[in-house]
This record gives sequence, C-alpha cells and structure tokens, in this order.
Amino acid sequence: MWAPCAAKLRDCWAASSLILSRCLSLGVSMAKSKFEYVRAFEADDTCLPHCWVVVRLDGRNFHRFAEKHNFAKPNDSRALHLMTKCAQRVMEELEDIVIAYGQSDEYSFVFKRKSNWFKRRASKFMTLVASQFASSYVFYWQDYFEDQPLLYPPGFDGRVVVYPSNKTLKDYLSWRQADCHINNLYNTVFWALIQQSGLTPVQAQERLQGTLAADKNEILFSQFNINYNNEPLMYRKGTLLIWQEVCEVTVKEVKLPAEMKGEKMAVTKSRAKPVPLYCDIIGDAFWKEHPEILEEDS
Amino acid sequence: MWAPCAAKLRDCWAASSLILSRCLSLGVSMAKSKFEYVRAFEADDTCLPHCWVVVRLDGRNFHRFAEKHNFAKPNDSRALHLMTKCAQRVMEELEDIVIAYGQSDEYSFVFKRKSNWFKRRASKFMTLVASQFASSYVFYWQDYFEDQPLLYPPGFDGRVVVYPSNKTLKDYLSWRQADCHINNLYNTVFWALIQQSGLTPVQAQERLQGTLAADKNEILFSQFNINYNNEPLMYRKGTLLIWQEVCEVTVKEVKLPAEMKGEKMAVTKSRAKPVPLYCDIIGDAFWKEHPEILEEDS
Amino acid sequence: MWAPCAAKLRDCWAASSLILSRCLSLGVSMAKSKFEYVRAFEADDTCLPHCWVVVRLDGRNFHRFAEKHNFAKPNDSRALHLMTKCAQRVMEELEDIVIAYGQSDEYSFVFKRKSNWFKRRASKFMTLVASQFASSYVFYWQDYFEDQPLLYPPGFDGRVVVYPSNKTLKDYLSWRQADCHINNLYNTVFWALIQQSGLTPVQAQERLQGTLAADKNEILFSQFNINYNNEPLMYRKGTLLIWQEVCEVTVKEVKLPAEMKGEKMAVTKSRAKPVPLYCDIIGDAFWKEHPEILEEDS
Amino acid sequence: MWAPCAAKLRDCWAASSLILSRCLSLGVSMAKSKFEYVRAFEADDTCLPHCWVVVRLDGRNFHRFAEKHNFAKPNDSRALHLMTKCAQRVMEELEDIVIAYGQSDEYSFVFKRKSNWFKRRASKFMTLVASQFASSYVFYWQDYFEDQPLLYPPGFDGRVVVYPSNKTLKDYLSWRQADCHINNLYNTVFWALIQQSGLTPVQAQERLQGTLAADKNEILFSQFNINYNNEPLMYRKGTLLIWQEVCEVTVKEVKLPAEMKGEKMAVTKSRAKPVPLYCDIIGDAFWKEHPEILEEDS
Repeated sequence: MWAPCAAKLRDCWAASSLILSRCLSLGVSMAKSKFEYVRAFEADDTCLPHCWVVVRLDGRNFHRFAEKHNFAKPNDSRALHLMTKCAQRVMEELEDIVIAYGQSDEYSFVFKRKSNWFKRRASKFMTLVASQFASSYVFYWQDYFEDQPLLYPPGFDGRVVVYPSNKTLKDYLSWRQADCHINNLYNTVFWALIQQSGLTPVQAQERLQGTLAADKNEILFSQFNINYNNEPLMYRKGTLLIWQEVCEVTVKEVKLPAEMKGEKMAVTKSRAKPVPLYCDIIGDAFWKEHPEILEEDS
Repeated sequence: MWAPCAAKLRDCWAASSLILSRCLSLGVSMAKSKFEYVRAFEADDTCLPHCWVVVRLDGRNFHRFAEKHNFAKPNDSRALHLMTKCAQRVMEELEDIVIAYGQSDEYSFVFKRKSNWFKRRASKFMTLVASQFASSYVFYWQDYFEDQPLLYPPGFDGRVVVYPSNKTLKDYLSWRQADCHINNLYNTVFWALIQQSGLTPVQAQERLQGTLAADKNEILFSQFNINYNNEPLMYRKGTLLIWQEVCEVTVKEVKLPAEMKGEKMAVTKSRAKPVPLYCDIIGDAFWKEHPEILEEDS
Repeated sequence: MWAPCAAKLRDCWAASSLILSRCLSLGVSMAKSKFEYVRAFEADDTCLPHCWVVVRLDGRNFHRFAEKHNFAKPNDSRALHLMTKCAQRVMEELEDIVIAYGQSDEYSFVFKRKSNWFKRRASKFMTLVASQFASSYVFYWQDYFEDQPLLYPPGFDGRVVVYPSNKTLKDYLSWRQADCHINNLYNTVFWALIQQSGLTPVQAQERLQGTLAADKNEILFSQFNINYNNEPLMYRKGTLLIWQEVCEVTVKEVKLPAEMKGEKMAVTKSRAKPVPLYCDIIGDAFWKEHPEILEEDS
Repeated sequence: MWAPCAAKLRDCWAASSLILSRCLSLGVSMAKSKFEYVRAFEADDTCLPHCWVVVRLDGRNFHRFAEKHNFAKPNDSRALHLMTKCAQRVMEELEDIVIAYGQSDEYSFVFKRKSNWFKRRASKFMTLVASQFASSYVFYWQDYFEDQPLLYPPGFDGRVVVYPSNKTLKDYLSWRQADCHINNLYNTVFWALIQQSGLTPVQAQERLQGTLAADKNEILFSQFNINYNNEPLMYRKGTLLIWQEVCEVTVKEVKLPAEMKGEKMAVTKSRAKPVPLYCDIIGDAFWKEHPEILEEDS
C-alpha cells in the first residue's frame, strides 16, 4: 500500500528538485553573461610587430637550490646539460624560436621577427616558455642527476624583451655571453682559492676585490697552474642552441623477400633539431657562418 | 740540454697566452658595459597599485594530454586533486596570494591589493606562478597517478588581469565558477549519452544542441536517473583555496624523567595553510563568512 | 589643315596620359592595401575599466612665457581666469569629465569611472584635452589680456593617470591642492621680499631656505602685515570646476497680443555648466556636500 | 582709552590666527607627503628605443569645422597652408622631428630613432605635438583666413606609433600618401559632379559607387575636361616637411666709416628650416635624394 505512495513522493520530490535546479542553472548561465564584462579588464600585450622577441628565464633562488642539491662548484655540468635539455624541449614544443642561449641558471629564447604565434602576446610567450621549461626540468632531472633525488620543484622567473634590429639582438646575446665570461672567470678563481688554497668564502672575496680580468687569469695560472683558456668551452661561452638538420637512423623491421627474412633495415631521415654549440657570438664569425638565423625572408 | 729550453718555451708560451687572454678578457668585460644598453629595451609592466592582481593559468593542449593519460570522463578526480596540490604549492612558495580558484585545467590566483611583491611586475607574477605550477605538476604526478606514468612534461599558459574593486574581483571569480557549472553540466550529460546510451560524440553533441540548462537536467534525470545537484561539489563548483589555521601534530622524542623514558610527546602547532573548499562564491554568503579576504587593513 | 591633326594629337596624348594615370592610380590604391599592415603597429592603450581617468596638463616653459607676457607676481589673476576659461571649454567640448582642478599653469581633468568615450583610449583622452585647451588659450587670450598681445602660441604637456578607487582619486586632488598651498605660500613671501623689501631673487631664496610654513606665515605677518589666510581663496586653494545647473535668461522677441506689441519676453532655461569653486577639497566637507560627483550610479 | 585695547585685541587675534594658520599650513605640507603616493599610479610609457616614433594628429570633427568656416571644396588651399604653418611651428618648437607629412586635416611627425627627448615618453610626445599644433592653428588663423573669422577653437586627436625599421617607417608614410591620393581623386570627381554637373551629394556618391581609380580619371577627363595629373601637386601628394638650410638675409644698421654713414648692411646667415615639398614618397627616388633623413649617424 505504501509503495506507490513512496514512488509518488519520490517523483514529486524529483520534480520539484528539477524545477529548483532548472531555476538555479538558468540563473547561473545567465549570471555567466552578466559576469562576462570582466574580460574587458585584460590588457592587450601584443609585442611590436617585425621585432625580435626575447624571453629570458632565470632560476628562482637557485643559489639555495644548488646548495640543497650538491651542485659542483664553480660549474655543475649535469645541471648545465639539464638546462640545455629543457631548452631543447622548449624549442621543440613551442613555435618560432630560432635561437636560444643559456649559461648558469638562465636561458634566453629568441622568437623570429615575424612570428605571429599566439598573436605575439607577450604573456603567452613568457608563460609557455617558463612552464614548459619548469615541467621539463623535473621530468628530465633523473636523466642527469642519477644519484641525487630532486627535493622540491623549482621555479623560474621570466620576462619578455623586444629588439627592433639585428644589431640590438646581437648586442643582447653578446651582453649575456660577456656576463657568462665575467662570472665564470670570477667563480673559477673564487672556488680555486677555496677548494685548493683553503680560503674561506669571505677571504676569497677579499682576495678578488678590485682585481681585473687579467689579474684573475694570473692568479689562476701562477697559483693553480690553470690556463683559463683551456677551461671547457661550455663553461666559458655558455650554450647556444640553433636548428640543424640531423640524420636520424631508425631500425625498422620490414617485409623482405623470404631469403632475407628476419633482417632489419636502417631507415635514415633528416630532421631539424636544436643542436648545442659552444662558441663565441660576440664577434662576427658566428653570424657570418649562420646568416639564415637573422636574415629570414621577409 | 733541451730541458731548460723546453721549460723556457713553455714559460714563453704561457706568458704570451696570458697576455692574449688578458687582452681578451679585458675586451670582454669592456664589451659587457658596451652591450649593457640593451637593458633599456625592457618595458616596465608594473600592475596598477591598489588593485587586485589575478594570474590565471590554463593547461596547454590538455584535451590531448587528457587522452594520452587516460583521464576519466567527464571528470578525473586524480587530475583535479593534482591541480589543487600544485596550486597549494604555488600559494606556499610565492607571496601575497590570498585566494585561488580552480576548475578543469585552469587555476586563478589572486594577489592582495597592496602586494608589492617583485614591485608588482606582471611578468614576475605570471612566470613564477606558471613555472612553479608546472614543475609541481610533474613533481607530484606520481602521488596522484600511481598506475599511469607521465608521458611528457605539460605546458601552461598564463595571463595577468587587474581588478580595481572588490565587486569586479568577485565578479571575476563568479564568472569562472559560472563557467565551471555550465561546462560541467554539459559534460556530464554529454558523457552519459556516450558512456551509457552508446551515442557517438557527434550524436551526443547534436542531441545537446540548443538545449538549456533545464533541459540538460531533465535528460540527466529522466534518462540516467542522475540528479545533477547530487553530483560531487568539487565537479560542480570547482575548488577554492583559502588560508586557514591548521593544527599540525608532530610526534617528537623528548628528554623526559627516567620513569617516562622512551615515551614520545605530541606537539601541536598552528600554521596557516591553503585549504580547499567546494562552495558557491557567486552569492554573498561566502564573502560574508570570510570578510578578511577582501577587507584587508589598508 | 592642322587643326584636326592638333585635336587628334591632343586626344592621343590625353588617351595615353589617361592610360598612364589609370595605371598609376591603380598602383597607388593597390599600394594602399599593401601598406595597410603598418596599422598593426599601433599599440592598444585602453585605460583599465571602472577606474577614474585623470588627465593633467602643464604649461610648457611657462616660466619664460610668464616673463615675456608680463604676468603679475606671485599670481596673475588674468592668467588664472584664462586657464579656467579654457578648462570650462574642455569640459563642454569633451565628454564625461565630472570635475576639474587647476592651479598655477596646470589643470587636471577627471573622467567618470565608467566613461567609454573613445573606448577609453588614453591617447585620445590626453591629446583631445591638450589640443582643446591649447587652442582655447589662444582663442580667449584677448578676453583676459586686453593690453597684452599674445607673442607666440604656447604648448602644454599632458599625461593620463588612472585611479582605481574614490580614496585614491581624492588623494590625487588633495595632493595637487596641497602643492598649490605650499607653492603659493612660498611665492607670496618670496615676491613680498623682492617687491616690498627690495631683496634680489637670490637673497629672497636664501632668506626662505629651511623655513617651515609657520615661519613663512610669520614673515608675511610681521614684516608685511599680510595675514596669509586673507589672501584670495583662488590663489590659496586653486580652482575647482564642477557641473551645476545654471539659470540662463534669454530675452526673446515673441508674437504677442496687439496691446503688448513690441514687448519682449525673458525666457529662462536651466542648463548644466562647469562652475568654478574655490574651496578646500582635502577635508571631507566638500565631498559630503557633493556626493553625486563620486557616487555615480553604476 | 579704547584704542590700546583694540590694538591688543587685534594683536591677540592676529597671534591666534597665526598659530592656527601655522598648524593648518604644517598640516597641509605634511598632508602633501601623505598624498604623494598617488604618483606611483602613473604608468611608464617609454617608446621602445632605437625605433622611429610617429605622432599623427587628426582634426576633430573637421567636417563640421570646414562647413562652418566655408572651406572650399574639394581642397581649401588656405586651410592646407595653415596646417603646414602649424606643422612647421611644431618642428621648430619641439626637438628631434626629422620629417613631417600632412594631407587633409591630418599631420604626421617623425621623431628620430635615437631621440631621447623627454626620455621617449609617449604621452609627452603626443600632447606637446597636439597642443603646440592646436595653439598655432588659432594663432596663425588670421594670416591665412583674412576674411573668415575663426568661430571656435578646434581640437585635434593624436596618437603615437612606433616603427622598428626604415622599411616600416617608409611604408607608414606611403600608406598616408596613398590615402591622400585615393581620397583626393574621389573628392575631385565627387565635387565636380556636384559643382559642375549639379548632382546632389547622394547622386554623386551613387555615381561613384564601385568605380575604380581609372574610371574616376575617365569621368574627370571626358565629363569635365580635367586631367587629374595636372591637378596641383599639393592636393595630389600632400605636403612633406624636411629640414633644409635656408639663407636668411637680415638688413642691419652698422657702425661704418664717416663717408658711408647711414648706410645699412645686408647680413646673410644660413639656418635650418622645415621646408615644404610636394613629391612622391612611395617610390625610392625621394629617399635616395635625401639619404640623411633615414641614415642618421648612430
């Protein structure tokens, strides 16, 4: 006797619930259009057309990060190679990056002059570079730091700078490479004084105060028998990434005549990949050798 | 007889190498200052003072990412919880975020009106949020997707929007929550039609064309016996993160009198943490309950 | 005999000229679309919505301008009234200005929060204010400087500043009025010392170095028997322009019954006009008296 | 008996008034620093370095202005010459303008690539151009419109556009000149149809709908015997202003030997002035003849 009644009640409840929810939902979707005016508060941040767009990333608090993860001093080649791996990933995942340059915990990415990727919106450029780089850093960590677990996920800050001419772009890259040289020379002496001469960091700093580049070279040579120019190029020049055609060999199992059964065939395919170079970019030689980087067809 | 000569030669080479390197180094460090003018090309992107600064992240190509990683449809609770974990990490690592709201593959972070973090530079805000979120996503993946390895590192795009008043900020958050509701209701019916009624995606889309919220509720109820209002709040409302004092209990070994030897002591400490809520933020109730979020002391 | 030939020649020349010109013209109009891409280089400069937009103008090299045109020191009331006349013209010609404030050679114009005039483009706001003000300055000069011809057309620089709240807008106006007070007090003593005590400008400057407002008041009172508080309000407070309903009386000749023939009729009409006030805007009193200025209906 | 008392009272009042005013003044100057934070709301609007900065002005509501002041149709040479006079004044009063181009009621001013005038602030560039142009327009009106009094002060809107290369700058100027040609050809036929054939404006518009440049040339020639190419260059090409050395001859009274007493001496001096040219700037010829305009020494 109660069953039909219960069913009826349930139906009745369901109906009223539906009516209520219908009203609520209608309300919400109407609300949406009511709220949509807030989109107008987004500012336009289009980069000036026909200019080189540079995104530079810097590791956040990487001094502490290097300590915690036992980075070798003054250079940790694992860390540098990991940075370059991430930069390559960024170049492959994103569009229109023609060259990248990295040193220490920073990397710069240059988008081509006439790129129209995401309508040249600066925020898209920098956040996509920053997030892709950061996720890759964690993803590939293990490949470079086998015995050192990653203790926490690092952050990177980024910025966009726009350069109107080839000259200003080259001067930007030269500025970063000169910075690499100055810092690396300083750090090489600084850590030699600490690691080999037993100075404290404060003492090492005092020893180097006021010295010119030439003085630092002399200390390295006379005191540690280090000829700075023989130090690894990657440390002294940083890493340049440019697109180059690379031969890829894939081994494929293929259908073959009976007498060759089971054999495999190597298939080679040419593909453009971001390839690291360790060379001077301040002089003209590099740019003369790679005219295609700056002289895009307009 | 040759030995001293060789030594002399070596010295001579070293000396000239040193002179050369001295010149080169001097050149480079002088070059640096010569190039430093390029810094002036950086544009100032300070956010208007006394305004709410919102950073919104969106997963890049997450449709594909969800496919490749077998996300459940219409909602994958593991993915949503991972997003929230990353957002919590962002709130803890960065400064001045007072509230965050996430749904689907997006998350919004609100910096306090008078924040002077990184001098309110928009690029710092958005790249640090984007990179910290992205590195956390990979870092914590395993905790949420035990049986599903991460196949590649994902990207997130970000933007900064500035809101001058409490009203406009609340309307922004309401806009995102209304968007969550509309999409989730659609997706819930859409996937029910596919998963339970065997429709193809195209058929499901056609079935839903032109339907209002109320119609979708009715389909859910009559055809699948689903009362949409009983669906999980997290799916319907998205996730809000606000700072709350949380009691942390740590068990410590302590020096105790002999008779209590070996015993441990629970130490409780109160700490502010970003805590998830699943509630309506379109109405006034939430804001009345949490007046401290908007009414900062000026 | 030659005539038809000449006509023919003329025709022939005309035809070929036409063909040439046709080609050229076609070329040019095609060229136009070829060049139109340069429009994309214009940056968007929309002011943040829901904020007060302030345009402030400053006379360019008005020190020299005042010298050349024999402005009275420390205040030339003709010059101040001319400035106000121009500001009124700006308020009448442009749209959405709710209040203006001027002192010395500067004037600030406040556009209403929700103005959508020229889509809130900052460049439109500031150039239209600057040009309308400047053309009015020359146009009305004669009305205020009867015996002093204008020697050259002056320039005014302008800027746009955006304020997100009533508090910050009021503080902006207070800042300008406090500036007016400080400068006017200084100038009043400075010129009294020169004009009445015969000091040179350098001596007057030295006399005032390090003095506080109170000291300056005392010099004025003890040395020149001037009670600063009795100085004209316009000099001490600057000029505020707000919209007020003003009764306009027009005398019209009207058709009247025979017995009233030849009589005229005064027609009164109420019209909003920008009316000058000389009052304190730092305290609350003014804003309480005129709540409509800030509390627009949203 | 009362006199001393009155004097005392006055002194007393004065003293207390002074104390009051001292407090008030102190209050105000302290207030000033309290309010000064509002300066931080000014946004930085520096133009990208090493780029051409173009300011373009347009007459506001000049259709109406032309009507009210009886401008000749399709071109009023007085109005065009007045515009050019104002542009020359702008070039002479402001700094770093290397070239200007005007047509109809618009004028474009190009600042040199490396100008650091007002630290390259866009707002300074555009408001100083706009205000100087507008005040000059009224100031020089009478010299060009002898029989036509100026009825009201006109406004001009302005904008800043930044061009990164010589090519884009030349394309900008070409765009404006192509626009001049297209409009002037149209207007020439349009007004011929009205003034000579008695068509109404609507009829004239309909007659021209869909016609190409060549068709318009043909109408002019066949119907009005006008060879468009013989129309004045200023109308067809607009006005270019460039700096040229001009010989100025001044007649001076000088001290001379007795026998030459009373004689005067002509002194010639060379001075750079903005000189108008009416020529094509779309082709290369002009730029080849004036290489100094674009190839500034860096």
